[in-house]
Amino acid sequence: MKTYVVAVVGATGLVGTEMIQTLERRGFPVKKLIALASEKSKGRYVSFNGESIAVEVLTDASFAGVDFALFSAGGAISERFAPSAVRHGAIVIDNTSFFRMHKDVPLVVPEVNVHALKKHNGIIANPNCSTAQLVVALKAIHDAAKITRIVISTYQSVSGAGKLAMSGLEAEAQEHLTTGKSETKVFAHPIAFNLIPQIDKFEANGYTKEEMKMIQETKKILGDDTIQITATCVRVPVLVSHSESVVIETEKKVTPDEFRAMLTQSEGVVVVDDPSNGRYPMPLHTAATDPVYVGRIREDLAFENGLSMWIVSDNLRKGAALNAVQIAEAMIQK
Amino acid sequence: MKTYVVAVVGATGLVGTEMIQTLERRGFPVKKLIALASEKSKGRYVSFNGESIAVEVLTDASFAGVDFALFSAGGAISERFAPSAVRHGAIVIDNTSFFRMHKDVPLVVPEVNVHALKKHNGIIANPNCSTAQLVVALKAIHDAAKITRIVISTYQSVSGAGKLAMSGLEAEAQEHLTTGKSETKVFAHPIAFNLIPQIDKFEANGYTKEEMKMIQETKKILGDDTIQITATCVRVPVLVSHSESVVIETEKKVTPDEFRAMLTQSEGVVVVDDPSNGRYPMPLHTAATDPVYVGRIREDLAFENGLSMWIVSDNLRKGAALNAVQIAEAMIQK
Repeated sequence: MKTYVVAVVGATGLVGTEMIQTLERRGFPVKKLIALASEKSKGRYVSFNGESIAVEVLTDASFAGVDFALFSAGGAISERFAPSAVRHGAIVIDNTSFFRMHKDVPLVVPEVNVHALKKHNGIIANPNCSTAQLVVALKAIHDAAKITRIVISTYQSVSGAGKLAMSGLEAEAQEHLTTGKSETKVFAHPIAFNLIPQIDKFEANGYTKEEMKMIQETKKILGDDTIQITATCVRVPVLVSHSESVVIETEKKVTPDEFRAMLTQSEGVVVVDDPSNGRYPMPLHTAATDPVYVGRIREDLAFENGLSMWIVSDNLRKGAALNAVQIAEAMIQK
Repeated sequence: MKTYVVAVVGATGLVGTEMIQTLERRGFPVKKLIALASEKSKGRYVSFNGESIAVEVLTDASFAGVDFALFSAGGAISERFAPSAVRHGAIVIDNTSFFRMHKDVPLVVPEVNVHALKKHNGIIANPNCSTAQLVVALKAIHDAAKITRIVISTYQSVSGAGKLAMSGLEAEAQEHLTTGKSETKVFAHPIAFNLIPQIDKFEANGYTKEEMKMIQETKKILGDDTIQITATCVRVPVLVSHSESVVIETEKKVTPDEFRAMLTQSEGVVVVDDPSNGRYPMPLHTAATDPVYVGRIREDLAFENGLSMWIVSDNLRKGAALNAVQIAEAMIQK
């Protein structure tokens, strides 16, 4: 069996750690794992397949002999170092937003548009976490009935903002419980027992970058610019897993039962939809699992051909690390 | 100045307590306050205008001489005792869902449809908390441009489920922080660091009663059955204040600036909408205040004539106690 040299850029971060664990859990054929990070992580080790691997400081020379370079260290790092990796012959799978909307960079969720991997210039982009779980849930119905409109409201966990956001939420919650005070330790506002209707910066049209990413990336991955999409992205005091309240309008009528049947056939999707018995997806139960969970499926009451649903998935897995590793797996299979 | 005998049914509950404080804060002309509750609250006292008032056990005879009876002790109590109050000549203002959709019972948010108070049979209904803040925000634009469609996703605080839900969330959060375990103390599932996409029971169409209340009550209060409305109601780990991500479609085009101008003129509304400077409504900042706060106003990207917004309000105030007292004030002014 052929094996590969895999570099993880941002190896000590939340997504980088999850990437390494995902490579191990899925038995990815790794010849050698190279853990790359900034100066700050010098002297640290990461664990992989029972071995302790010293973290190396990222430089242009880090990619010699690398087959796959998984980037998750921020857009500026990808911008600066992805070209070096490509020059060294590595295939870059980039989890940042930097290359996602570039015309010659495929933006891939393997269950949805693996065909887009056919043509690339060495860089493959991994979508935004909220986008990944959305398109996995909507691919089958878009093929069958053509989605014309999507209205999304997200409930996004703090882990989307990294490790410090998770410990920050816990510290804020403890302080609130102990002293009754709400002080922010991580975002622009307190997040414990609160909601922040802002993720990333604002654009001129009043939408956040996160909202525009969801809108644009969903169109690119589904390969359909005609879908009318709107999104409101909200940070909620949850540690892991993003949830989405989604309404879709389709050209052809699809009943909830037909949609459930489509989802049952869809790769990567688990239907949890027995609401009268209290069964629907929730972040606490989906954290640290791979699938995209869909529930609360019902005929929408605002559209003639509409469906409402509730989509939950671990944002560190399908929304980031898992999807990146799946892309590498798909590249190997080709 | 004429003064009135006011009875509060459910006087020791979260909304009942808030009703008594609201009567005091607004200087409602109270001749005598009668605090009514179940046997369980026997021996307790409530504080009103510096006096300590003994809680009385609710009976059919409790309403002798009462002018206004504010009910907030559950639908079954309203069903059983509101007719007694009416027989004694009291005007019932009922915060439960029991009478809301009855044809001969006005469902009133004074800023929106005070005219509906003209004709009643002794019972006035107070809407669901999520509905009240929604219609206050949407009244002006519905009058000016006719709303044709509303898509709502809610982020509802636990105080909507009462006092025990608030202490339960805090206890769950403390346990999670201390032991890492998530055990439910109040809802069907844990709520600390989690989301529950269910509020109230499910109906046959897959919607919860809470969602159907929002849909039906909004149509009744706005006096327009033709608006197409859909809602997804979600419980979030927030103590007080409900938040709503709302998309509306209107017959006539309205720009965000025009909408902001309408809201600035609307009674009971405060526009908090300077997102680039981190200014938008959040539950932590709106709890224990009266207004309905609206922000994140922007042209919607999924509808030609669409607007997106984020609406937050204290669910115990405008969503319950404040609205009930405002109804009583409006009855007096007539």
